[in-house]
This record gives sequence, structure tokens and C-alpha cells, in this order.
Amino acid sequence: MVPVKQARAVHLTAEEVALPEKIRCISADDLAALAIGCAIYGTGGGGQTQSAVLFAGRAIRDNGPVRLVSFDELDPEGLVMPLGGIGAPTVSEELLHSRGQAQALVEALERRTGRKVVAIMPTEIGGSNGVEPVAWAAELGLPIVDADGIGRAFPEIQMVSMNVAGLEPTLAAVSDVLGNVVLIDPISAKWTENIARAVTVAVGATALLTIYVYPASVLKPATVLGSISRSLAVGRAILGSPTPIATACELLDATILLAGKIIDIERSTAGGFVTGSVVVAGLGEHAGRMLRIEIQNENLIAFEDGVPVAMAPDLISVIDSHTGHAIATENLRFGQRVTGISWGCDPLWLTDTGLQVAGPRAFGYPFDYSVPEVQA
Amino acid sequence: MVPVKQARAVHLTAEEVALPEKIRCISADDLAALAIGCAIYGTGGGGQTQSAVLFAGRAIRDNGPVRLVSFDELDPEGLVMPLGGIGAPTVSEELLHSRGQAQALVEALERRTGRKVVAIMPTEIGGSNGVEPVAWAAELGLPIVDADGIGRAFPEIQMVSMNVAGLEPTLAAVSDVLGNVVLIDPISAKWTENIARAVTVAVGATALLTIYVYPASVLKPATVLGSISRSLAVGRAILGSPTPIATACELLDATILLAGKIIDIERSTAGGFVTGSVVVAGLGEHAGRMLRIEIQNENLIAFEDGVPVAMAPDLISVIDSHTGHAIATENLRFGQRVTGISWGCDPLWLTDTGLQVAGPRAFGYPFDYSVPEVQA
Repeated sequence: MVPVKQARAVHLTAEEVALPEKIRCISADDLAALAIGCAIYGTGGGGQTQSAVLFAGRAIRDNGPVRLVSFDELDPEGLVMPLGGIGAPTVSEELLHSRGQAQALVEALERRTGRKVVAIMPTEIGGSNGVEPVAWAAELGLPIVDADGIGRAFPEIQMVSMNVAGLEPTLAAVSDVLGNVVLIDPISAKWTENIARAVTVAVGATALLTIYVYPASVLKPATVLGSISRSLAVGRAILGSPTPIATACELLDATILLAGKIIDIERSTAGGFVTGSVVVAGLGEHAGRMLRIEIQNENLIAFEDGVPVAMAPDLISVIDSHTGHAIATENLRFGQRVTGISWGCDPLWLTDTGLQVAGPRAFGYPFDYSVPEVQA
Repeated sequence: MVPVKQARAVHLTAEEVALPEKIRCISADDLAALAIGCAIYGTGGGGQTQSAVLFAGRAIRDNGPVRLVSFDELDPEGLVMPLGGIGAPTVSEELLHSRGQAQALVEALERRTGRKVVAIMPTEIGGSNGVEPVAWAAELGLPIVDADGIGRAFPEIQMVSMNVAGLEPTLAAVSDVLGNVVLIDPISAKWTENIARAVTVAVGATALLTIYVYPASVLKPATVLGSISRSLAVGRAILGSPTPIATACELLDATILLAGKIIDIERSTAGGFVTGSVVVAGLGEHAGRMLRIEIQNENLIAFEDGVPVAMAPDLISVIDSHTGHAIATENLRFGQRVTGISWGCDPLWLTDTGLQVAGPRAFGYPFDYSVPEVQA
């Protein structure tokens, strides 16, 4: 057995992935790299990025590039609207967003609060949910904040840094492709999840959602900063590398769990989620080993011989062994040559509250988070 | 076989059931009669009235009697808020409303529209949904309009006179017992139903709902007028009669379908509804006959020998043969001695739009509405 390197709770800072020059705007040329970075941070979830790239490309072509800003550049009292898709990625792959869905949310929120929305932010940086906010920002003519609410993708609404930081989930709003808009005044983040998920299922299992709409000064300390420039940096490095998986592992300080071939995939779309598991049989130096990854939109836990070798909130991505591009869970197919990698999550998820919200038990597993032991 | 009298599309006018004096307020003493009237107009649905009577009694004790008004007495520009419970009556029988649920809706609507709510109205006069608005009106210190949106009870949101009259379902709002409030900006009445039903199921299969919130002058021509005083009149007549079923039939011009004993009941609570059927075996002069009534919250269609003998939108009530009180579908039990009666609905439901919205096909039956033929 090839030893599995111990996963560590590390987190790339914006400085560690510093770009040659400070990014001040996102143009159409940046979208390919951004998508590759978001896909790897998406840990299989957040939706496949292909249609998001087309969507953002069109929006930028129609409206011009999107300004990438820090919270400090915004009016501290101006509202920042975290945006993301909610639902089953298998559905959002086919039932695309409509123009105007973000505008409907802005109108609902401005009318409700009497304040102006001055910027948007990806609720989660993972997958299409990291890319589509660029499209919405272009459509709305608003800047996008270089931050997100997870530092990866997670399947449920309460699994965001704003909740871990203790912000009240005062308002949430959902808009669908048809034009229905639902404003939720919840009593807790978990009730936002319950209600918004039910609404999402009722409108076709995919919708656009905003949660934790707060003034910039309130939101800043409750988010993961630098997410967009970090995804861009990782994406560019992978795009430019002849050995993309090695490059990704080096940048992310990630561990290779197993390289092989997908020999089984079980996936169902129910309750507004994609759930299932994928089994990878080792090839080459990993021949004779098997890795099983359990999924709820995202890759949650990786098992080898029945023992967890990586687990949420740490990140697990399944990468195409040839291209180095992370594969969304809804696009996993029998026979694909893939490499499973894992790396440490943002430290916020390893706090007591963080683990309570998004540790293994939050997903129904009967064990606590631990850094998986080195296998012999 | 005892001939079944032909059901007719008749509708008691407020004049026909004129009370000794004009009712100007509803006090605790009126609640028993109101509940009996609402139960019979509820056609088995709208929720059992016992807890609603207790709830309204307490609210009137705490806040004083409720003014019963006509639309003409209100500021024509003031908002009227139609109120009703949504969900499965089997659940609302056990999971009672909370104080403040109506206040939460008023606040959400006033904030959203910038206008004042000046009165409330029962969305449907049937069952507890005809009685509870008295409690909410008392709590809110607002008058209640002598009207409703159906003239009976129906299971789904789009099945209201405001929809038949062509009003746009511009706004709806749901509040639950915990304090969650959801504001819906729908594109159609059916989407209000889909979304509000999903929210209701998510919050425990019972909630308080307001739909078609409009100024008094807009709502007036789109409602069934006189519903509350009509229910009070019918309830008082039944309460004061030694032969309550005969009295009810005379007042409503109703047909006795069958008098007998409940020998089978099938009922399930799913998707935010109670669905099932009840079978009544004839006793006495009806011995040897059987009546089967199919249910979706309300009694929808009555069959004898496989032939419909009464059907929605006409009204079908199952009355306790001893007390003369209508029994809610969730309270039907094996062995109860009951009398099935049927009478004609408000003419609005026999228009093309009315039948499209609440005729047999709207409930999934493969036949059009017809006045059932006299049986030989």
C-alpha cells in the first residue's frame, strides 16, 4: 500500500498565491482559469462550471468586465448580497438560470430593507457558484467582493462562515427561472435551509439564492477573504502546468489519495440534492487499492478499506488524471481516469462551531472529525 | 333505492338567511353557531372547529368582540388581508397556531406595500378557516369583512373567487408557529400554491397564509359576500332545531345522499394534504345502499354504485345523524352514524373559469362537472 500522506489543516492565504499584479477586474479572458480554480475548490459540488463560463462570458461581453474589490473599498453601510445557486447540480446542468434572476433579488431586498445593494459576493467559491456571480455582477453593473462564505462548496445553507461567525440569518431570498420571488424571514440558518430547499424543490430543484445580506462592514469579518483571487491563481497555475495534478497538490499542499479508474457510481437526485457515492480502483502504482467517496452534492468523505482517509470539512476533489481539471459529482462517469486528492480546509471550519455546522456528524456520519491517520 | 334528489346550483343570499337584527359584531356567544355553520359549509375541510372556537373565545376575552363590516364601510384604498390556515387538517388539529402569526403577516405586508391593513377576511368560510379569522381579527384589533373567497372550503390556493375573478396573485405570505415568515411574489395563483404548499410542508404541514392582499374596493367584486352572517344564520338555525338535518337541508336546499354508518375510512397525510375516502353503508330506509366519498381535505365527489351522485364544486357534507353537526374529514371514524348531504355551490364556480379552477378535472377526475342525474 502506498502511504497516504497525512491531511493537514492548512489554508492558502491570498499572499501565498499572490498574482503577478493585483487583480482589479475580471474579464472574459480570466473565466477559464477562474473556472478551473473554482472547480477544484468545489470538491465536486457547486455545479459544473462549463455553462457558468458561457453565461459569464456573455454577460461580460454585453456589460463589460467586472470590478473585483475588497470589502474596504465599499461603503461600509452598503449592502453586500451573497449569491449562489441552490438545488441539485444534476438539474442546474440542464435547467439554466434566466437573466433577471439576480435583479429580482436586488429589488426584493432593497424594497425590504430600504438600503442599496452595492456589491455581490459568491456565497461559496466552489464550482459554478464561484463563476456565476461574475455573470450576475456584470448584469447588475455591480462590483464583486474578493471573498466567499465557505472557502469551498457545501451542500446546505447553514454551512457558511456567516453562520459560524454568529451572524443572524435575518433575510434570505430565492428567485426562480420563471420569475417567482420568495423572501424568507427565518428564525435560524437551519430554517432558512429547510424553507429555501423546499421552495427550490417546488420550483424545479434549482434556483438562485441570497442569504446573509448585510452591510459590507458587518460581512467582512464573517467571510473567507481572497477566495476569488486564490481560485484564479490556482486555476492559472494548473492551466499553465505540464503536470497539473502535481502543481495543484503543491499549491494546495494536497495529498493524493488514489489515482485510478472509476468502476462504480451511484447517484440519485432527491430532496433538492444529488447524493450517492463513487468508487475508484487504483491503477499503476495504486493498483489493488480502492477508494470510495460519499457524496451530498460535494465529495464528503473518502474511505479506503472502510476507513475514512479524508473527511469534511477538509476538501476532497476528484481530478481528471489527464487534464488536471476537477470533475463535478454530476459529471462523474464509469471508466473515467481520475485522481482523488485531499487538503486542509479553512481553519474556521475546525473551530467547535465550524465542526458542529459542517463536520462529519452534520452530514449524518456517526464519528467526529479527525485528521485521518497515515496508513501503513 | 331511494331516489336521490337532483342537486341544484343554488346559493343562499344574505337576504334569504337574514338575521333578526343586522350583526354588527361577533362576540364569544356567537362562536358556537358560527362554528356549526362554518363546519357545514366546510364540506369536511378547512379544519375541525373545536380548537378554533377555543382560540377565538380567548382572543375575544382578551381583546373584546370583533366588528363585522361590509367592504363599503372600509377605506376603499385600505388593504384587506384574506387569512386562512394552509396544510393538512390532521396536523393542524394537533399543531395549533401561535399568537402573533397574523401580526407577522401584517408587518410583512405593510412593509412590502407601504400601505395599512385595515381589515381581514376569511380566505374560505369553511371549517376552522371560517372561525379562526375572528381570533386573528380580535388579536389585531381589526374588523372582519362579511365575505370570503370561496363560499365553502377548497384544498388548494388557486381555488378562490379572486383567481376566478381574474385578480393577479401579486403577493402571498406564510407564517409558521415558530416565527418564520415567507413572502411570495408569484407569477400565478398555481405557483403560489406550489410554493406556499412546499413551505408549509417544510415548516410542519400547517401554517397561516394570506393571499390576494388588495385594497377593499378591488377585493369586493372578487369575493363571495355575506359568508359570515350566512354561516351564523345556518349555525343558529341548526343549534335551535329539534331536527337539525332537516333544518339544514331546508335552509341550504340540500339533498340527502344517504343516511347510515361509516364502515370504511382510508386517510393519509401527505404532501400537505389529507387524502382518502370514506364509505357509508345505509341504515333504516337507506339499508342496502352504499355511498363512497373521495377526499382531498374536503369531500370532493360522492359515488353510489360507481356513479357520481354529487361532485365539486357543489358542496358535500357528512353530518353527525344525532347532533346535526358536520364532521371534518380528519374526524371521520369507523362506526359513526352520519348523513351525507349535498347542495349547490355559489354560481361563480359554475362559470367556465370556475369549473376550470375547481371542477372535477381540477382534482384529477376524468369527467366534467354535471348535475348528477336523479337515480331510479
